[in-house]
Amino acid sequence: MSADEENRLARVALTWLAEPGTRAVHRLVERLGPVATLDLLLDGGSPDGWLHTTVAARSTAGDARAVAAEALERADRLGARLVTPDDEEWPARVAGLSTLHLPDVTRRVDGETAPPLCFWVRGSWPLGEALERSVAVVGARAATGYGQHVATELGYGLAERDWTVVSGGAFGIDAAAHRGALNSGGLTVAVLACGLDRPYPMGNAGLFDRIADTGLLVSEWPPGAEPLRPRFLIRNRVIAGGTLGTVVVEASARSGATQTARRAIYANRVAMVVPGPVTSAMSVGTHEFLREFPKARLVTGVAHVLEEVGRIGTDLAPLARGPQRPADTLDDDARSLLEALPRRGAMGVDRLAARAGVDVRTALRKLSLLEELTLVVRRDDGYALAPPAKSKRGKPATAAETSASA
Amino acid sequence: MSADEENRLARVALTWLAEPGTRAVHRLVERLGPVATLDLLLDGGSPDGWLHTTVAARSTAGDARAVAAEALERADRLGARLVTPDDEEWPARVAGLSTLHLPDVTRRVDGETAPPLCFWVRGSWPLGEALERSVAVVGARAATGYGQHVATELGYGLAERDWTVVSGGAFGIDAAAHRGALNSGGLTVAVLACGLDRPYPMGNAGLFDRIADTGLLVSEWPPGAEPLRPRFLIRNRVIAGGTLGTVVVEASARSGATQTARRAIYANRVAMVVPGPVTSAMSVGTHEFLREFPKARLVTGVAHVLEEVGRIGTDLAPLARGPQRPADTLDDDARSLLEALPRRGAMGVDRLAARAGVDVRTALRKLSLLEELTLVVRRDDGYALAPPAKSKRGKPATAAETSASA
Repeated sequence: MSADEENRLARVALTWLAEPGTRAVHRLVERLGPVATLDLLLDGGSPDGWLHTTVAARSTAGDARAVAAEALERADRLGARLVTPDDEEWPARVAGLSTLHLPDVTRRVDGETAPPLCFWVRGSWPLGEALERSVAVVGARAATGYGQHVATELGYGLAERDWTVVSGGAFGIDAAAHRGALNSGGLTVAVLACGLDRPYPMGNAGLFDRIADTGLLVSEWPPGAEPLRPRFLIRNRVIAGGTLGTVVVEASARSGATQTARRAIYANRVAMVVPGPVTSAMSVGTHEFLREFPKARLVTGVAHVLEEVGRIGTDLAPLARGPQRPADTLDDDARSLLEALPRRGAMGVDRLAARAGVDVRTALRKLSLLEELTLVVRRDDGYALAPPAKSKRGKPATAAETSASA
Repeated sequence: MSADEENRLARVALTWLAEPGTRAVHRLVERLGPVATLDLLLDGGSPDGWLHTTVAARSTAGDARAVAAEALERADRLGARLVTPDDEEWPARVAGLSTLHLPDVTRRVDGETAPPLCFWVRGSWPLGEALERSVAVVGARAATGYGQHVATELGYGLAERDWTVVSGGAFGIDAAAHRGALNSGGLTVAVLACGLDRPYPMGNAGLFDRIADTGLLVSEWPPGAEPLRPRFLIRNRVIAGGTLGTVVVEASARSGATQTARRAIYANRVAMVVPGPVTSAMSVGTHEFLREFPKARLVTGVAHVLEEVGRIGTDLAPLARGPQRPADTLDDDARSLLEALPRRGAMGVDRLAARAGVDVRTALRKLSLLEELTLVVRRDDGYALAPPAKSKRGKPATAAETSASA
C-alpha cells in the first residue's frame, strides 16, 4: 500500500472511530498526520479522556482499518470516491471551520466543529470547483407551499446565474431548492448525514439520483452509515462553512435550519433569512433568527442573495421602487399647485396661487409646465386637473388618486 | 380679547398662513411668541424668502385673523377644541420633533418637520394623557387580508394592555388598527391630515365617529381644511413623534407608511416592522425598510412591540421555542445511546455501547435512566425504543421522529 493510500485509509478509519468534526482528532491529524494519529488512538494514547473511551468502545465492534478498507470497496461499487485534503478537488473553504466556535455550548456536538477529514462524493464535478461559487438554501422539512415556492425560485435563480446550490437531503425546503436548481439545468450539491448508499429519507431516493447525475451527492460518513440525529448537526457545519452564505427559507421555532445559519454566522459566512407571514408557524424560527442576530440579512429573492454573496460592484440588487410618475419630477411650487387644484371643476389662477402659497407669476409659469406634462388643462373658467387617462402602465394615475397616497 | 385668546388665535392664523411643521415659523414663535410672529409675517417682515412669498400669496385669499376666528367658531359648533402648548393637555413628546432632520431632503415637505403649533381635538380624553403610553400602527391602504388581520390583532392587543393605538384615518391598515383597539374597549387616536369636519376618506366617517366617542380625533388643520397630498407627509411626523414607536404592518414599495417609520427613526423613536410573504407586493416596502435601516426592529406581534416600547424589565417577550421534550434534558452519553438504538427491534448492550461510542458500564447506567424516562424498554433480546405513545401535547414524540429533526 502506498503512503498516500495509507493516509486515505487512516482518514476513513478515524472518521469511523470518532464522529467527523471531533476537535481532538483534527488537532492530532494536523500535528502528526492521519496514520500516526490512528496508531496513537488505537494504542490507547489519546490525550483526551472522552476520545479515549469512545475509541475503545468503538473498537470493540471491529478493526478500524478493516472497516475502512471495506468502506472504500463499497464506495467503489457505488461509483463514489473518497476526497481528502491531498486531492486537488478538496474544497479549500472548509478549512475555515477550524475557527468556528459556537458560544454557550452545552451539547458536545455543538463544540465539535473541526474541519472534515474526508468526503465521500458521487457525481462527476470536482467538489472544490462545485463549491467555489456556492450558496446554501436550507429550511424546514414541514415547509408550507409558500416556503417551497420561494426555495424553488431561489434554487432556480441561483443555479441559472451559475451559482451552485447546496442543501441537505430533507423533504420540504431542501428538496425544493435542489429541484429548482435541477430545473434550471444548473449545479446542485446535496450534503447528506449518512452513507451515500442509504438515501435518507427514502422518498427522496429519486431526487438523489438526479442530483448525482448532474451535480454532487456528498457525505462525511462512509457507505452504510446511518442518519443518526447528531449527524445532522455535524453535517450542518459543512453546509455553512463550505458555502459563501446560507439562506434560511422557513424554520419553525425549534429548527435545525437555523442551526445551519447560526454556524454560518460564527464561521463568518453570510447568514440570510427569508421572512414570511407572522401567522405561519414555519416562519417563527426565521423571524426569531433575524431578531437575535443583527448580522443576519433579510432577503426576499435571488437579487438580494447575490447582493450579499456576489463580488462587490456586481450582482447588486436594485432598490424596490414603485413606477416613476410624471409628478415625481416636479419642483415644490409645481407640486403645490397641482395639489391645490380641485378634484372636480376649474379654478382661477389667483385663487389657485393663494391656495398653493405661491405668487401669481410663478403660478402662471408652473401651470404652463403642468399643461405640457398633460397633468393640467387650461379652460375658459381657469385651470383643471387633466381627465384621468389610461396610463402606459395600465393604471390610471390622476392627481386625485395620488393625493391620498402618502 | 385676553392675551391667552390672542395667542391661540395667532397660532391658528399662523397654521393657515404656512403649513404646519414650517421650521421658519416655529423658530420665530419660539423667539417672539405667536402674536408677534403673526404681526411680523403679516407686515411682510419674514426673514425667509420662501415664507415671505407664501404668506403674501395666502393673504390675498383673506385676513388671517378673521379666518382663524371663523375656524374657532366652526370648531365650537363641531364639538372640537383647540389645544396649544399653553394647555395642560398638550402632548409634551411632540417637542422632540424640533430635532427631527431627515437626510437627503429634496422635497420641501421633508424638511419642514418642526413641532406643531396647535391641535384640533374631538373626544373627551386629554390629548397628552392619551399619547403618554402610545404606539402607532400604520400601513398600506390597499392592505391584504393578512395585513388587516395582523393590524387588528396589534390594535386589539395593545389597547387591551392599556396602550393607546395611534394611526391615520385611511382604509386598510389604519382602519384595521383602530377597529382592533375599539373592539378591545381601549383607547385609539386618529390623526387626520384635514379638518375634523371633513372625514377623509368618506367611507370611514362612521369609524371616525366611533373613535371620537371613546378616543380622539386629532388634526393640525382647522375645520374645513382639505386633505391635500403633502399634508399626509406633514401629518406623519406627528404620528411618528407623538408616540413611543411606530409599527408598519404592510407597505408597498412606494408607501407613505414607511415615511412615518422613517420619521420615527430620525426622531429617535422605535421603528418596528411586521414582515410578510416575500411574494406579496404589500410587504415589499416593509422588507426594504428592514434592509435599509438596521435600527428598525422586526416584530411579529404584540409581545415584540411591548418588548421594544415597554419599560425595561416589564412587558418582555418570551423567546419563541418549541415544546420541551424529555430527551432535551439528557446528557451527551444518554443522547448518543438513545440515538444509537435501532428504529425497530432491540439491540444488546455491548453492540449498543460500541455504536454509541460509550463504555459498557456507562451504557448500562444511562440505559436505566432512559428506561425511567420511558424512552427505552428492556426486553429479553436487549434494549429497544419505547413504543410511540400519544404525548400530552397530542402529538407522538418518538426518538425515531426526533432523529431526523436537526
